[in-house]
Order: sequence, then C-alpha cells, then structure tokens
Amino acid sequence: MTHPVVSPDPEIVHLARLLVRCPDQPGIVATISNFLFNHGANITALDQHSTDPQGGTFFLRLEFQLPHEELPRTVLQRSFQRAVADRYEMQWHLSYAADLHRTAILVSRYDHALMELLWRWSRGELVTEIPMVISNHPDLREAVEAFGIPYHHVPVDPTKKPEAEEAILELLGDDIDTVVLARYMQILSPEFVARFPNRIINIHHSFLPAFVGARPYRQAASRGVKLIGATAHYVTSELDAGPIIEQDVLRVSHRQSIRDLKELGASIERQVLARAVRWHLEDRILVDGNKTVVFA
Amino acid sequence: MTHPVVSPDPEIVHLARLLVRCPDQPGIVATISNFLFNHGANITALDQHSTDPQGGTFFLRLEFQLPHEELPRTVLQRSFQRAVADRYEMQWHLSYAADLHRTAILVSRYDHALMELLWRWSRGELVTEIPMVISNHPDLREAVEAFGIPYHHVPVDPTKKPEAEEAILELLGDDIDTVVLARYMQILSPEFVARFPNRIINIHHSFLPAFVGARPYRQAASRGVKLIGATAHYVTSELDAGPIIEQDVLRVSHRQSIRDLKELGASIERQVLARAVRWHLEDRILVDGNKTVVFA
Amino acid sequence: MTHPVVSPDPEIVHLARLLVRCPDQPGIVATISNFLFNHGANITALDQHSTDPQGGTFFLRLEFQLPHEELPRTVLQRSFQRAVADRYEMQWHLSYAADLHRTAILVSRYDHALMELLWRWSRGELVTEIPMVISNHPDLREAVEAFGIPYHHVPVDPTKKPEAEEAILELLGDDIDTVVLARYMQILSPEFVARFPNRIINIHHSFLPAFVGARPYRQAASRGVKLIGATAHYVTSELDAGPIIEQDVLRVSHRQSIRDLKELGASIERQVLARAVRWHLEDRILVDGNKTVVFA
Amino acid sequence: MTHPVVSPDPEIVHLARLLVRCPDQPGIVATISNFLFNHGANITALDQHSTDPQGGTFFLRLEFQLPHEELPRTVLQRSFQRAVADRYEMQWHLSYAADLHRTAILVSRYDHALMELLWRWSRGELVTEIPMVISNHPDLREAVEAFGIPYHHVPVDPTKKPEAEEAILELLGDDIDTVVLARYMQILSPEFVARFPNRIINIHHSFLPAFVGARPYRQAASRGVKLIGATAHYVTSELDAGPIIEQDVLRVSHRQSIRDLKELGASIERQVLARAVRWHLEDRILVDGNKTVVFA
Repeated sequence: MTHPVVSPDPEIVHLARLLVRCPDQPGIVATISNFLFNHGANITALDQHSTDPQGGTFFLRLEFQLPHEELPRTVLQRSFQRAVADRYEMQWHLSYAADLHRTAILVSRYDHALMELLWRWSRGELVTEIPMVISNHPDLREAVEAFGIPYHHVPVDPTKKPEAEEAILELLGDDIDTVVLARYMQILSPEFVARFPNRIINIHHSFLPAFVGARPYRQAASRGVKLIGATAHYVTSELDAGPIIEQDVLRVSHRQSIRDLKELGASIERQVLARAVRWHLEDRILVDGNKTVVFA
Repeated sequence: MTHPVVSPDPEIVHLARLLVRCPDQPGIVATISNFLFNHGANITALDQHSTDPQGGTFFLRLEFQLPHEELPRTVLQRSFQRAVADRYEMQWHLSYAADLHRTAILVSRYDHALMELLWRWSRGELVTEIPMVISNHPDLREAVEAFGIPYHHVPVDPTKKPEAEEAILELLGDDIDTVVLARYMQILSPEFVARFPNRIINIHHSFLPAFVGARPYRQAASRGVKLIGATAHYVTSELDAGPIIEQDVLRVSHRQSIRDLKELGASIERQVLARAVRWHLEDRILVDGNKTVVFA
Repeated sequence: MTHPVVSPDPEIVHLARLLVRCPDQPGIVATISNFLFNHGANITALDQHSTDPQGGTFFLRLEFQLPHEELPRTVLQRSFQRAVADRYEMQWHLSYAADLHRTAILVSRYDHALMELLWRWSRGELVTEIPMVISNHPDLREAVEAFGIPYHHVPVDPTKKPEAEEAILELLGDDIDTVVLARYMQILSPEFVARFPNRIINIHHSFLPAFVGARPYRQAASRGVKLIGATAHYVTSELDAGPIIEQDVLRVSHRQSIRDLKELGASIERQVLARAVRWHLEDRILVDGNKTVVFA
Repeated sequence: MTHPVVSPDPEIVHLARLLVRCPDQPGIVATISNFLFNHGANITALDQHSTDPQGGTFFLRLEFQLPHEELPRTVLQRSFQRAVADRYEMQWHLSYAADLHRTAILVSRYDHALMELLWRWSRGELVTEIPMVISNHPDLREAVEAFGIPYHHVPVDPTKKPEAEEAILELLGDDIDTVVLARYMQILSPEFVARFPNRIINIHHSFLPAFVGARPYRQAASRGVKLIGATAHYVTSELDAGPIIEQDVLRVSHRQSIRDLKELGASIERQVLARAVRWHLEDRILVDGNKTVVFA
C-alpha cells in the first residue's frame, strides 16, 4: 500500500475555522460576523453555546471561506485581535484547513484502534499528517509501514520510565499538534501531559466514569452491566478523568464472555476514537473546565 | 386530574424565536445580529444551515431575549421587514414563547400516542394550549376529559367523509395553529390538508419510506426486518410522503409476533411523535421542499 | 377511568414457566424435556445458559403448555422434585401464568415511572395484580385511584423510619410477590430488603455503576458525560449495588441543562423500568450472585 | 502482513453445531437431547423457535461438545437420521467447528466492507478459510495480497456478463461454501444465484425495503430520512429482496451531504456485514421462507 493521496475538497483551500471563548454578553455574534463580512469572508457554518446568557461563558465555532483575493493571515489575525478579541476578552484560535494538522499516534500491542485511524486516514476521512507512530512494542511495525508511516519502537522499562518519555518527546519534536493514544497501555507522567494540554486524546475501554483504571471489561463483566462502552477523552494528569469528548455503548448480556466483551468493545472503541479524532482535527471541540463543548 | 398548571420558565416571558429562509449570500448573519443588537435583544441560541454557500438556500433559527423595556411587536416586525427581510428576500416567522401555540389532537381508538402527548403536556414538557381532542370514536372521552380537555366525537361515515371533515373544520375554527394526528386512522382530503400547510403532524408506524400505507407492522413482519420504526412527518396530499420530522427504530427478531411488534412499536411511536411535536412547538423545524431542517 | 379489563391471551390459561439453576453436567436438558413430555406438557420456549460447561452453573427457563386434562399441580411438582430436581441438586421455581403475580408499587413525588407502569398495566402489557400503591407523599392519590388502585399515604418522618417501614410492611401483608420502587426516594433498611430477596426492583436514574447515590443527573452534568442512562436492579442491602436487570442510555450534549437531563432521563427511566418489571413478571430473570441472567 | 495464525479456542476442536427445521410437535427437544446424551455429547447451547406450537414450524440450533473418544461422524449422522430425523421429518445440518468453512469474497472498488472482513478474519474473529477474493477491478489487489489471500481480477464487459460469471464459477470451483458480496456492484444472474442457495450474502447500503436498487444514499438524501441504514441479506433472484439477516441504522440530519452519508454509511455497512458473516459462519441462521431465524 502506498502513501494515500487525499483528494482535497476544493473548498478546503479557502476554509478557515475560528474558535472563540469569552464572557457572554450581548453583541458578540454581531461584532464577529460584521468583522468577517467586512473582510470579505463568507460564513458557512456557525455554532454557539452559552453556559448562561447572564454572566456565563460564550463558546463559538465559525467556518468561513477566506476571500479569494489574498488577505495576509497576519493582517487578518492582528486586526481581529484589535477590533474584536480585545474588546470581549476573548480566547480564540484561528486555523486554516489547508494547513494540515500533525498527529502522532502512540500504541502498544492491540492494533484495532490504530488500524481504524490509519484506514480512515488512508480513505481521506481524517485530514491530517501522521508523521509517526510510536510504540513500546515492535509488533505493529509492518502494519504501520504499509501505510507509508514511520514506526518507532520505544521500549518502556518500568524502572526507566522518564528515559522512555524523554525518547518519545524527542521523536515528537516541536511541531506535533496532537498525540493520540490508540490503546497505549503506559500511563504518561504529568510533565509529559503538561506539554500537550488538551492535545492528547485517549480511548478508554469503558463508559467513564464507570470502570476507571485497569481491566474495565473484566470490571464490567463482574458488575453484570447490560451495556459496555468506550470513552474518548483528553488526557489530564488524573487517570481517566480528563474532559470527555465522545462515548458510545453496545448492548451485552449474560451470554458474552470477557473475551466476547473485548471483541465487541473493540468495535465501539474504534468508532468512538475515530469520531473524537475527527472532531478534534476539524476544530469542533472546546474545553470548558473538565467538560467539552462539541460542535459536531 | 385537574387542568395542569405549567410553571413557566421565567425566561420564557421575554423569549422570542425567529425563523428565516432566504437565498444564501454573504452578510446575512451580520445583518440580522446587528439588527437585534441595535434593538436591545440578546441572542441566546443560533443555528444556521446552508444547502450550498454558492447559490443555495440559507436557513436560520434564532432565540433571543426581548429587551425588557417594551418594544411594540409591530414596530419590531415592521422594522425587521424593511431593514433586513426585504434586502435578502427572506421568508421569515417571528414567534413569542409567551403566546401559547394552540394545538388540536385527532385520534381514533389507539390511545398510546395521545396519552403520551397529554401526559407530557401535563408535566410542562409540551408548552401549548390543547383546546380540544377530536375522535371518530367515543372510546377515549373519559381519559381525555380527565386532563380537563374537551373531547369531541365526530363519527366518520365512509359515505359521508366530506361532511365529517366539515364538522371537524368547524370545531377547529380559525385559531388552531397545529393539528396532531395521534394515530387518527382516517385519510384527510387534500382540501383539508391544504388548510394547514406544514401544520399537520402525523405519526406513521413504520420507518418510512418502507411500509407506506396500511398495516405496516404486518408488512414489517412479513418482510422479516430486524428493526421496526416510527416516523413523524408533516401531512401533504400524498399519503405518508410528506416531509419527515423524526424517526427512530427498535431492534426486533424472529421471536416477536405481530402483536409484540405493535406493543414495542407503540413505545417508539410515542417517543418519536412527542419529540416531533415538541420541536414543532419550539419552532425548530423549517421545511425545505419535501425535507425538513430540524434545529434540535 | 375504570379498572382495566385485561383480555388474557387464551394460551395463558395453560401456560407454565419453569426456572432452574443447578451445577452444570450432561443430561439436564434431556432429563427435563423427557419429564415434561411424559407428563403431556408441550415446551413452547426454552432458554439455557451455562457459566461454564465444566463445573459451572446451569440456568434454564422453560415455557410449556400444561396438558389439558387436569394434572394436579402438587402431583406435578412433587414428581418433578423426586424425579429430576433431587438428582441434579436443582433450585427451581414453577409458576402458572394464570396465577396473577401480586405487585405493590412504592413511589414518592415524581410520577413518570409510576404512570408508565400503570398505563402499560391498563393496556394489558404488564400482567399482574396491583393491589396497592404506597407513597410517602399524598400528591399522586388522584392519578392512582383513577386506575382503580388503592393509594396509601405513609409519611416518613426522618426520626421515625422504622415505624414507617413497619406501616408499609403491614400494608403489604403476606401475599405481595414483588415490590417496585418507582422513584421511591427513601432508602429501605436491610431488614426490609431481607423480607423480599430479589423481589424488590428499583429504578436508578443513571448508568450504574457510574453515579451511585443522590442526584445522578447533577453528577452526570458535572462530569460532562455524552450519554445519560437508567438502571433497573434488584435491591440489596448495599445502596445501588444489587444485580442489574436492565440499562439503557440516551445521547446528550453540552446543550442540555440539568433540567433537560431530568426530562430526557425520565423517558429512559420509564422504558427501562417497564422492561425490567415485565421480564420479572414473566419469570425471565435468574439471579447469579450479583448478576442476572435475563432470558428476554 | 503474513497469513494470520488464528489461535483456535481449544473447545473448538470438539465443537459441533446442529441446525434443525421440522413441523412442530411435542417431544422434539426431548428426543434430540436424549439422542445426544446417549451418544456422550454435551449440549453447551440450545436455541429454539416455533412459528406456532400448533401446526407451525420448529427451528432448533444446538451446540455440543463431541465425546472425546472418537465417534465416527458417519455413524453419528446415520444414527441421527434413523433415530430422530426420519421420525420428525426434519431438515437438518450438522457441522463441525474444526472443519473450516470456505468463504470467497467478491468486491468491486469500494474497499471498506472487504477490509473490515479481512481485518476481523486476521484477528481470529471470523473463523473461516478465505481461499480467494475476486473483483471486477484491479484496484484492491495489493491490499488483499497483503493478507496472503489470492486476488483474481475478472473484468465484467457489459455485453459479456455470462462469460464473466462463468470465469468466476470456475475460480470458485466445487468446494466454496459461501460467497460474500462486499460491495460487488454487478447483479448476479439467477443461474449463478441458484448455485448457492442461501449461501450468498450481500450488503445493501440502505435499510431495506426502503431504497431498493441503485444509489440508496442519494435516494435517502432526497427523501430526507433521519436515519440511514445498511442491510445484510441472502441473495435471491429478485434484486435486494432476499431474506434479511441483519440491519442497523445511524442518525443523520440536514447537515450531512451525500458524501457524508456515504462515509457514515460505510461504517454501518462494515459492522452489519461483519455480524451477518459471523453468524453465518457459526451456523446461527435458519432461513424460513423469505425471513431468517437468527440465533445470535
């Protein structure tokens, strides 16, 4: 299999996305939409959410087509800061779909979550660069390299975890936007996590907050639940407690063994993680404390 | 049971909803949000959809808090028409949550869809007046009157359908906003339907367009489907072919008899119809040809 | 509304159900099916489950039509004990669909779970007697009595809980088979629970084991989950930890307030509890330690 | 990627499955379970279904462990025919899990359904041999051969369809048990279909019977449905009308373009087809006229 050639949507070339968070107050939408209109940009999607119109937090996501005559990005951004953002005390982020996101994937031995991502990526469903896959095991090298992606094996000696993380950080370098843990079975240190705030996505194989920690399918079987689930979330320094991005469940019964639960669960994990990564790549997620606002 | 006293959300008193449809072009959101801001209104929810940014149709739903100082409605509306709507060739509809919608329900013998509506209404989940229930059977009078709602029995003699429809129209009078067919088993004439364009909601007991017409559960059993469904749609002159508002399904197997399918199906019908009626009451539905845009 | 007249399925008159649990070993199905065949009974449904064919526990549920010539029940049962049950060390339970189960419902103020049960019961979907509804509040008297069911108000003074439980036990008397807690907001004492082992069904308004205890919707909103759920379970002395019978979930997002979650959740609670009670009434549930085997 | 090594469940070596269909009458279960017990076999799973206890059709699926001392298969089968099957006019089928099923896959250009099957197969979730993939396009050769499976390109000239089918039949030879159409976009002739009665599985990309024929996603978008689905079914001579094995759906809205529907739909197609193929391989499906009984 050769490196996939994503046939980009022609509209993507001029597509930009704006994420905004600020204290809610009247006039924000009017101000922003005026600003964009006056700069020749055409809004094609708009989602907003307010935690409370009186004194709450306002969240906004905009997609717009940039004007075809070239407007230098720095001009647009400086102008937005001055004319809009300062006035409303906004935190904001503007991205251009044509600038591909750079995503690194960490994995251990289970291949299902990884393969789902690579496979969707090769079909053009996940629009990103994937400059590397890093694993603490050598097992999946051939499968990854078949997609034309470099595979790095960084063994993790339990007594030398900091060294392993150092090696991973060196591989990641300075220009990785997002790290996806596609069933990476090592717990990352708070220092590592702090390097990528709300930029590490993990897939946990249970419906959180039920069954935090190890062996969730075993826990689920032992509790006799009638649904098993999977949860994609941003990683924070507290285990399995970061902002939830997406969850889904599947019906099970007394008939399923733990082995069956793992097999069925793998299918949900794949879908939940793929949705979460896609939303992240399309700048559809805003973090609000320990929760997410997802404009899906 | 006495007439329910809906404890209205205090914000409802000043809540208005604006629905807009017009040819898409740049600047619409800016213009509308400016207009509202300048009139002291505060946008609390905004959903938009464009069938195509180049030459498509633009749909918008806004919720906003009216300014507390009194702004006469006619002034606001005339001003909007002149300053905004004319310019963009808009079809638009402005409603005030404090003005209760008036909903009539038609039913035959099956009570499940009707009771679900009445019961949610009595809990304040469906915010509307229900001035009457009309049925071609006398069976459900007691159940309806227990909610304090008048019940009218209009028998339908197959040879005198126009007379029956005439009687129903007379009961409905001139100020019914919406007619809900909660398993009303008579087909309405095109003339009747034309009186309430996109204002008659029907619940069909299948996943349309599968199993149009009579006895859909029997059809479903005979085809051996693995899911049964229900569809809420606006009624048009063509049977079961109007714009779909909401659908849902439930898993079934060889184990279920037709009687079981009816029982299980009743549960989906109740939920699907209740959701559709609620969205309709909250002005969340825009009709686009034979499809709907639902800002749920 | 008058007392419902359940039109019983004609096959119900001769329908019997046998539940069996015993150590697994070869020959059980052969022995039981022979026994029934030799007594003129015709098996119409059979479900079995083994936790492990080698040394595990075997669970069986049989539905069969009793022979039309009268076979005295005591004869059948004594014969089964001697010829089958003793040999395989079975725990078993034989019930006759014609002997209506007797179900009491406990409720506090929220009416949704209660009304769903009464309403399905009035349609013949829950085949049971309901000799009484008991509540620690007077609010729902009229709604319950409309179904022709006696309503008992037993206030619970926090300092006199044992007295209240005593009053409830007296009302229940000696021939209540099952107690359903349809959002009864008082915690029952271990002594009370011990009187009805695996015969008290509770509906908990979360996906257990997530959000044990009070205010689960508030907990769910605070954790930012993307699905909310409900769990029906048998009550044991440990709060919200008894064997799970049924669970279901509904998708939510940042858009829903806690009030919305409660409203949406009510709809799942109603369905989950109704399914659990139905399966219980039809003897479809076997308890296996802290789990259930549900032959649905 | 090398040929997968399925680590077989140790119990599979002695696992046999019996499928039975016959006119319903008392005593069938007793007779069969006695027969197996007397031959030293241990039943580990049993599912039954009767379309009607009075004069209906009885369906049975049994899993059992063969006795460890060798019982020649021909002896067992001849004995079953004489002692059981003849007496009840049974159609029956006995299979041994250790005898791997032989499955051929036909595909055109879309790879998602094919890749899901190959990938699950490589993980040991689909227990079968896959001696070949046949396609009317050359595109997927590399992807298939990476799994160690031979790929045959049989172009289909619209004017020479019979020749193409002849070439396919020659490749299939005499010992292919099942043919899976994993988005094979050619309609097979009735003669071809007749060679594999209830042994050709197709995945149709809609919720049948809605949207029969070509371009179902386009049809779905045009009808404005709120759920899109996929259906796996056995192929008969009538297009998209064979017995349905499995179906599932996904919620969509006005936001999705036809391109989005295809992408989302691919995900359901993959799951629905994988479930159907697995049930088929595990002998869980009995065909009843134009319906299926699935003991899943």
